[in-house]
This record gives sequence, C-alpha cells and structure tokens, in this order.
Amino acid sequence: MTTPLATGTLCIAGLGPGDAQLVTPEVTAAIEAATDIVGYIPYVARIAPRPGLTLHASDNRVEMDRARAALHMAAEGKQVVIVSSGDPGVFAMAAAVFEALEGRPDWQALDIRVLPGITAMLAAAAKAGAPLGHDFCAINLSDNLKPAELIEARVRAAAGADFAMAFYNPRSASRPHTFGRVLQVLLEACGPNRLITFARAVSTPEETLLTVRLGEATPEMADMRTVVIVGNSATRHVGRFVYTPRSAL
Amino acid sequence: MTTPLATGTLCIAGLGPGDAQLVTPEVTAAIEAATDIVGYIPYVARIAPRPGLTLHASDNRVEMDRARAALHMAAEGKQVVIVSSGDPGVFAMAAAVFEALEGRPDWQALDIRVLPGITAMLAAAAKAGAPLGHDFCAINLSDNLKPAELIEARVRAAAGADFAMAFYNPRSASRPHTFGRVLQVLLEACGPNRLITFARAVSTPEETLLTVRLGEATPEMADMRTVVIVGNSATRHVGRFVYTPRSAL
Repeated sequence: MTTPLATGTLCIAGLGPGDAQLVTPEVTAAIEAATDIVGYIPYVARIAPRPGLTLHASDNRVEMDRARAALHMAAEGKQVVIVSSGDPGVFAMAAAVFEALEGRPDWQALDIRVLPGITAMLAAAAKAGAPLGHDFCAINLSDNLKPAELIEARVRAAAGADFAMAFYNPRSASRPHTFGRVLQVLLEACGPNRLITFARAVSTPEETLLTVRLGEATPEMADMRTVVIVGNSATRHVGRFVYTPRSAL
Repeated sequence: MTTPLATGTLCIAGLGPGDAQLVTPEVTAAIEAATDIVGYIPYVARIAPRPGLTLHASDNRVEMDRARAALHMAAEGKQVVIVSSGDPGVFAMAAAVFEALEGRPDWQALDIRVLPGITAMLAAAAKAGAPLGHDFCAINLSDNLKPAELIEARVRAAAGADFAMAFYNPRSASRPHTFGRVLQVLLEACGPNRLITFARAVSTPEETLLTVRLGEATPEMADMRTVVIVGNSATRHVGRFVYTPRSAL
C-alpha cells in the first residue's frame, strides 16, 4: 500500500510594479498558502519569510531552469508560487512555464494557474495620466530572444499605423545600442514633436517620471528599470498630465 | 472672512475584471475614503453602499458628462472616485477625464490620480495561459470614436508585423458588422490555423473561455462582454493551455 501524494499546485503570480498596495488579494492569498516561492532574486526579496515557507531565489536568464524546478516541486505535492514583477503573462515567467510543459503530460496535468498583476506599462501610464488611452502596442526591446531586425520592423509597423507604444527592457549594459536605434527609427517615423515618457521604478521609492519630445530623447534616459511610453500622433499635455484622446475621428 | 474650501480629490480607479480578489488594496482604500462614487451603472453596482457615500451611476456613452460632474464635485471639496472596469487607462474613463481638463486650469490644479487595475486582456490571458507572452497590440474595435478604416488598417499592420492582439469591445448590436470584417481581415493575413481565444466575463460567475482556429471563428462567438485574443504565428496549445513562446529566433 502506497501513500498517495499530496496534491501540488503551481501559481504563476504577478507582484505588480513594486508597491504592496498594488498586489491583488488573490496573489497575497496564494503567497500565504505557499510552501515554496520561486523567482528572480529581487522579486523573491519582496516576499516576507515565515516558518514553513522556503524561498528559492535565482539569477536572471535562467527562466527555463526556474520553471522546471517549480514544476518538479509542484509534482512532489508542494504549493509553489512563481513570482514575477508586474504581470506574469507580459514578458515574464508564464510563457517560460508553459514552454517547460512541452512534452511533459505529467506536468500538464498539474493544477497550474496564472494570477494576473498590475503590469509596468499600466502603472507607468497611470502615473503620467493616460498616454495609452487609445490603441497601443507593447514591445519587449530585449534582443536576447529575438533578432534586432524584428524589433525594428515592429516599431516601424506600430508607428506607421499610429499606435501608442510601450517598451519593456529598453536598455542594458550588454546591448547598449538597441534602444538608440529604436529612438532613431521613431524619430524618422513620428517626427521630433512626439511625446515620449520615461517611467523608472514606478510605485517604488526610486520612482522617476520624465516626459520629453522625441527630438530631445536620449538613450541614457532609460535603463532596465524603465518602461518607455511613446504617444500616438494625438497624444498631448494637459496641465501636468499626458494623455491620448479617445477619439481618432 | 470666507471659509476655505475643503481639499477635494479625484481618483480614477480600476476595479479589475469583476472578482473582488482582483481589486488592488490601493483602489479599495480610495473607495473607503470616498464621499462620492461616479461611473457607468454596472460598475457603480459593484460598490457596497454605506452611510456618507453617495453613488452616482450613469448610462453608457455619457463619458464626458460623467467626467465633468466628477471634476465639479472634486472642485467643491469632495473625495470623488470614478470607477471603471479593468484598468481606467485602457479604453476607459481616464482619457475622458483628461479631455475634460482641456481649457480648465482650475480643474487641472486639483489632486487627480489614476489608480491602475487588472485590465480585461491580462485577466483573460491569465485564464487561457500566456497568449500575450510576446509583443502584442491592444485595439478597441468600437467604431464610435474612430473610423472603421482605421481599425482595419491597425489590424492589418499588427498582423503584418506578427504581433499577438487583444480586441476590446468587439461587438455590439448597433454595429454588428465590424467584428465580422475584422475576422475576415485576420483570416486573410494570418491564415485559418491561427489560434483565437474568446474570453467572456472573465473572473465572474458567467465566465466562459473558448479557443478555436481562425478558420472556425464566427462573429457570434463575441459580444460586448468578450475580450478577444489572437495569437502570433508561434502561438500554440500545450495541454489545456494556450501560450506564445518568448523566443522569436
């Protein structure tokens, strides 16, 4: 006679941009019920330690290892929560976990849930006003997982169809030129007067917000903690706010 | 001698897609501190009445009147919260409030804050898996405020650059043909095998989720409570989930 395994679960949870006031009750409840928290070091650092909870912090760029480790623990019967900043489905851990399920019907049968969070572009937009108040695109500028040509083609397509845009991961030390090139493409496609907002570390004590015209924008205005929002052709200032009108008539 | 006016505030708050577990503590605190709640009837109906709180529910398509009424009350010293479903900055009330600030420096000087919420496309994506796990566009299919040609041009541009897409307000009784036309455009641009997810009333008791191929999709699969998500060329099933791989290499 064998003892049946406990039923494990895996939640892929979004912690929002930083402020505890922006964490949903659903995510808070999942963390309270967890036996194991898995994630990138600075995100796991946001979880309060307590007896019965094991924290598994790992470095950046090991998303697949992290996903498999979490699935393995859930298969053992643990209550596992993978934490991402922002929303787990936007340039974060959810896609990595589903990739790790490929060819693993045993893991596919687990109780797996994605718990949404406040993603960085929407927290940044809220601080600035409503720059994403009309149709918009979200583009990851990291070229770790896609060619620079595809990034440029998407920026051109979005600008050509007059979408507002939000850029994640605009700049890192390992690829300092990508974002400068994107700014060039935008300047050609949108002209120097288009509004661009650099929102860094939104909702944390280090938050900064800067809106300039494209003609004044420089690559140094962004780093990896920055979300960049580019307005569409109608985006404008009103008082201290930036917004994109609802109408395109 | 005149009595100074009390300092009014206006919060433009996102209630998330429906489930109270998806309302941020920030929004809950703003509602608890409010004297007046303003919004579209079904959203105001989500706020519990209490002594000292006045609920101002209004019909759809009166966004500018609603924005001005809220600003007027805040200018009188009230603690006003405008409630939107989802995120207020995504096809909701924030842009209307900033529009109402045009030419009104008195209103521009008020304490106005946008409080982000879980927007419908991210709640829907979380239920389906991670269909927005790579670059994506959000497009409002309502043609109240923009010409149908612009909608079609944006859908073509997004499909041409291989973005995943999320569509808000896909279909209403007053414009039954827009969404059928969008499905035609998508079928031409993306082919019949592209995955499309219809997520209705996500996180409410009426929630339904349906993923089909574009070749099988019909306009009747959507109504005004539906968010539609179209994958990119790499979007696939794994087990019961739909996801878009992180890599485009």
